[in-house]
Amino acid sequence: VAILGPGLIGGSVAKAIRRHSPDTDVSLWTRREESLDAIKSALPGCRVTTSLPDAVRDAEIIVICTSPEAISASGPLLAKSLRSDASVTDAGSIKADIVESLEAHLGGRFIGAHPMAGSEQSGIQAARADLFDGAACIITPTPRSEPQALEAIRMFWKGTGCLLQEISPQEHDRLIAQISHLPHALAAALVNSSASLGDLVSQLAGNGYRDTTRIAAGPADLWTEILLGNRANVVSAINEVSRSLDALRAALEKNDRPAVEEFLTLASARRATQRKTP
Amino acid sequence: VAILGPGLIGGSVAKAIRRHSPDTDVSLWTRREESLDAIKSALPGCRVTTSLPDAVRDAEIIVICTSPEAISASGPLLAKSLRSDASVTDAGSIKADIVESLEAHLGGRFIGAHPMAGSEQSGIQAARADLFDGAACIITPTPRSEPQALEAIRMFWKGTGCLLQEISPQEHDRLIAQISHLPHALAAALVNSSASLGDLVSQLAGNGYRDTTRIAAGPADLWTEILLGNRANVVSAINEVSRSLDALRAALEKNDRPAVEEFLTLASARRATQRKTP
Repeated sequence: VAILGPGLIGGSVAKAIRRHSPDTDVSLWTRREESLDAIKSALPGCRVTTSLPDAVRDAEIIVICTSPEAISASGPLLAKSLRSDASVTDAGSIKADIVESLEAHLGGRFIGAHPMAGSEQSGIQAARADLFDGAACIITPTPRSEPQALEAIRMFWKGTGCLLQEISPQEHDRLIAQISHLPHALAAALVNSSASLGDLVSQLAGNGYRDTTRIAAGPADLWTEILLGNRANVVSAINEVSRSLDALRAALEKNDRPAVEEFLTLASARRATQRKTP
Repeated sequence: VAILGPGLIGGSVAKAIRRHSPDTDVSLWTRREESLDAIKSALPGCRVTTSLPDAVRDAEIIVICTSPEAISASGPLLAKSLRSDASVTDAGSIKADIVESLEAHLGGRFIGAHPMAGSEQSGIQAARADLFDGAACIITPTPRSEPQALEAIRMFWKGTGCLLQEISPQEHDRLIAQISHLPHALAAALVNSSASLGDLVSQLAGNGYRDTTRIAAGPADLWTEILLGNRANVVSAINEVSRSLDALRAALEKNDRPAVEEFLTLASARRATQRKTP
């Protein structure tokens, strides 16, 4: 297995593989010479290189864990370096652009994926072998997907501890705009709209504010690529939640108790049915 | 000490007192006959009654932990039943209305308070002795506050494990609209705007959605009272966060990368400085 970009996600993939199948050879590629030592010490027993052709030459499975734009751009170099029977997957948070670009260069042996795990932290130091345990992994096959590549990639993500779901790349982007990209946008907007309170936020806020905004601390460069890469769907999701928030604001302005209570009752009942199913 | 309304907050206050000072006599008042058994078994060693005069007659400190509207309405009956040297406090999430109403009936021996701890759960079963450890407790004295009552209430909340902050009732309501009531409104709006996805939310959502929306599962009746009781400030806070969200939406629509990145960078840097200080 070759993992390209061993940060939080890629490093956790490497750790999960070595936990579940310790005999698998794992090679890691990083663009940055200066990251080699940190990666070697976090993942002893893996081969680490800054040469992409060296990393992927013997791999049966290649997992691209770089940022969405870097994933989309990786097709040409990968196409020249892969074994003919290699299967390729990724862990990008957007899928339509990535799948279109990589199928153009790699054909049906590229199978897009998005493990729904992460944290506001980043980097190899935050990687954990159990990050994917019980998390959903969305696989996005297309009519071009080769059956044996699809099967190999399904087995691979199952081996990390994920529970698989399969939908199209376009449907993925629409759904994930709502349940991942919109929550990030709201968390960031809430933090920015609280900026005038300064230190009072740290001094006074309880778990409500802290949990609601935790993800806003995530890496801004990565989230810029994600929100721009899925911007049509994210804008639609922002429009939809704005309408919902406007309805609540209108009910509050009119002191309309039944309307406020109905809004909160629906939210409470819906959220209560969304508890994590382990 | 008498605690009125031993649910999540009142029950946790009782447990915290008995952990820190096991010799303190604690009496508990509940409106509902049918709750007596659950309260007795959750808090052995406390006296439990459905008679408010019985509960408060000998108490030096009375802590009102019912809903905001019940707290505001409790003045007349309390005024008739209290010891002359008793000090009274509460745990309500709004302060201006409550302080105005209780000072009118109890004078300067009422000192408003708001411990910034809680959870999306409710009821005595969710009560924990450590709920307040390290949490902020906002005390809202006024020019009418009696110095000895203020000092007694400060000591009391310190004894539960809280870290004290003092601001005016009006300033409390303005700040808490932003860091508690608005996060609840956003979480509820996000859940409601995701309703069309149905079971897919449970199947796909990662920790981002889960943490961002956790508080939306809180009790709708209580939150209706809170949002309506602070509606002018909550509407202002919704307006402010809507402007922030509109700015992000506009940047996404224009594919304006520097603007999106600046928005997310500010949010990430601000949130990173708001880590819990234990």
